[in-house]
Amino acid sequence: MAILVQKFGGTSVADAEKIRRAAGRVIEAVKKGYQVVVVASARGHQTDELIADALELNPNPSKREMDQLLSTGEQQTVSLFAMALHAMGYDAISFTGGQIRMLTDGVYTKARIMSIDASRIHKQLDSGKIVTVAGFQGIDENENITTLGRGGSDTTAVAIAAALKAEECEIYTDVDGVYTTDPRIFKKAAKMKQISYDEMLELASLGAGVMHSRSIEFGKKYNVKIHVRSSSEQTEGTIITHEVPQMEGVVVSGATIQKDMAKITLIGVDNKPGNAAKIFAHLARAKVVVNDIIQTEVSGAKANLSFTIGISDLPTAKEAVEEIKKEVGCEKVLARDDIAEISAVGVGMRNHYGVAEKLFGSLANAKINIDAITTSEIRISCIVDKKDAERGLEAVCTAFELDKPAEKRGKTK
Amino acid sequence: MAILVQKFGGTSVADAEKIRRAAGRVIEAVKKGYQVVVVASARGHQTDELIADALELNPNPSKREMDQLLSTGEQQTVSLFAMALHAMGYDAISFTGGQIRMLTDGVYTKARIMSIDASRIHKQLDSGKIVTVAGFQGIDENENITTLGRGGSDTTAVAIAAALKAEECEIYTDVDGVYTTDPRIFKKAAKMKQISYDEMLELASLGAGVMHSRSIEFGKKYNVKIHVRSSSEQTEGTIITHEVPQMEGVVVSGATIQKDMAKITLIGVDNKPGNAAKIFAHLARAKVVVNDIIQTEVSGAKANLSFTIGISDLPTAKEAVEEIKKEVGCEKVLARDDIAEISAVGVGMRNHYGVAEKLFGSLANAKINIDAITTSEIRISCIVDKKDAERGLEAVCTAFELDKPAEKRGKTK
Repeated sequence: MAILVQKFGGTSVADAEKIRRAAGRVIEAVKKGYQVVVVASARGHQTDELIADALELNPNPSKREMDQLLSTGEQQTVSLFAMALHAMGYDAISFTGGQIRMLTDGVYTKARIMSIDASRIHKQLDSGKIVTVAGFQGIDENENITTLGRGGSDTTAVAIAAALKAEECEIYTDVDGVYTTDPRIFKKAAKMKQISYDEMLELASLGAGVMHSRSIEFGKKYNVKIHVRSSSEQTEGTIITHEVPQMEGVVVSGATIQKDMAKITLIGVDNKPGNAAKIFAHLARAKVVVNDIIQTEVSGAKANLSFTIGISDLPTAKEAVEEIKKEVGCEKVLARDDIAEISAVGVGMRNHYGVAEKLFGSLANAKINIDAITTSEIRISCIVDKKDAERGLEAVCTAFELDKPAEKRGKTK
Repeated sequence: MAILVQKFGGTSVADAEKIRRAAGRVIEAVKKGYQVVVVASARGHQTDELIADALELNPNPSKREMDQLLSTGEQQTVSLFAMALHAMGYDAISFTGGQIRMLTDGVYTKARIMSIDASRIHKQLDSGKIVTVAGFQGIDENENITTLGRGGSDTTAVAIAAALKAEECEIYTDVDGVYTTDPRIFKKAAKMKQISYDEMLELASLGAGVMHSRSIEFGKKYNVKIHVRSSSEQTEGTIITHEVPQMEGVVVSGATIQKDMAKITLIGVDNKPGNAAKIFAHLARAKVVVNDIIQTEVSGAKANLSFTIGISDLPTAKEAVEEIKKEVGCEKVLARDDIAEISAVGVGMRNHYGVAEKLFGSLANAKINIDAITTSEIRISCIVDKKDAERGLEAVCTAFELDKPAEKRGKTK
């Protein structure tokens, strides 16, 4: 029998009515002949409330104890979910992460999954039960409870789908799929039928926010077909999978905007071996996460070096840069927090000419100045003034016809 | 190093301030040189809220899933308790029932403890940590979570004290000890310095309500000194222990009243072998818990048989009695729900004459009619009209000087 993993996030199980609705989704799949494993998050704001309870007692709580505390939220959801299924006439059994031996490393609050005992789940499925599993959590080899960090329940779902060789892993969420861009900014954004893991990873890391990048990496590694869909509407969502041939015809799949960022530029750094390493060692020690790095040579001996960071890291980064100036030496430091990054992503990009030209041209036509440019194999990003960001995204989306489904692009022009 | 187990009930850990106060008690014990194990219940009304959540989804929830759900309440408390201790500068670590391998049988919602892995707790205590353990819960041999039923956290505490050979098991509660009788009825009730397990068992089963009888049975079996004391006041409470010589001088230690009961009397039952067994088999099948049984022979061939039950079981018991009438035959059935039972309890009773006389005399002087009488080795109980119950208890308490500490009785008369 084919196995289906269905993951429901916190908003999809926030109250009894929503749990019943989610249970209805599960029963639909059972009626289609699937063995179903449900992975659920903590209900609504439960996790936030537990964090507040903890901080009231200790402003700097132990990570082990936080995991021990927060894991209860998912445990509650899955037992309640099983009860709801019982009430609807279906047999079900709930498990904590520990009970299915979801073994992780011992890094509390951001543990990594090492193995899952699939036999415990198979045994229950084969006895006719629906299995509900607490997301976000595991245990280390000493039976301490660990949690997987942000997006952890997605990772649990994808990992279980991999371990059970499930046909598909459905991620139920409050959006009905992955869009070509943020529909709040570009109202005509189109829903994608499918997207490759690599594109989704670029979009996730750039802030598309539908799924956390770790679960997509997991899906890519273990070849899990992920289906992002709406928990409230009966529509097909977006399939995240390996590249399929028709994808290559699509040059740009999606575009994103990232606003909460800042850029620091070191002007006139001595361009000698080891200096870049020293600079980023300073930033790493200060625990500043660096996004993009852009270096340009201004003369044989000097270079300008820019890097982008989260805006909240800017004060720390500025302090680190003072140290860097002392050690490495540079003529001037510029910091900007009034910028945003517009990116176009697409696996088709690597086989097509003219993508960069079209992107830069669309921004130029809109009279938007490009401050800096950085690229990867399937992405081109431009840093622009924050005030121009939304207008810029619209220009890019229009240029690449992101208001149309992929199969209809390039046909009306 | 001597080990102390401290148990805090739900009201003693209801909010951050109360958890901090409880943590203060723990730290006092640590400063006295004890290794301390904390056992805690779910905070305030958490368990009630979770039960309401469950019933909203399923009016008849699976017992396994209820245990999975409710065990989270205690898990939250002990992780928060550990965080509070950290904030106060003490090292601590929390454990679920499963993490200390509190193995139980597989009877969900009222499991019985089979074993505890004391080495896991010793290891942490010996490394200088305070250990906080979730009360009320364990796991069965298949790692399903079980709960111990009413008074379960007391049982957890006493069982851990037994397994660790603790010097004492302190039960912190909202009363400051065990009283000779209910102070809400007999205002002059005196606090007992000590009481034997057997007396406490009679008082607990008669509804004194301070501790559940299972934990006292556990204490008796494994010789755990139990100290019932106030979580808000710095006073000595009541020690529950084996009989000590001076206890024999005390004839009656305490008196109780039980109101939520009913009595059924079968008049003119054929007095032949096997009839009593048939009667109580019917009641057992109907899941009626029978308290006292009183049989009197009215002639060579006929007997009257009474039994008392909880008042909520009366409708079910009446139905069962109809079946009994058909099978066993009896002349008449009487049912009363307007009764109460007054009991005097004391280990000294068995070596003293005149206790019954004094008890009956005190009720007679108060012009209270005795409907029925039943006794055990350390208890005499009288069934009276419910309207007379409180007045009767006062008469009994006055007769046995239960307004004075045990050592002062019989000295002023």
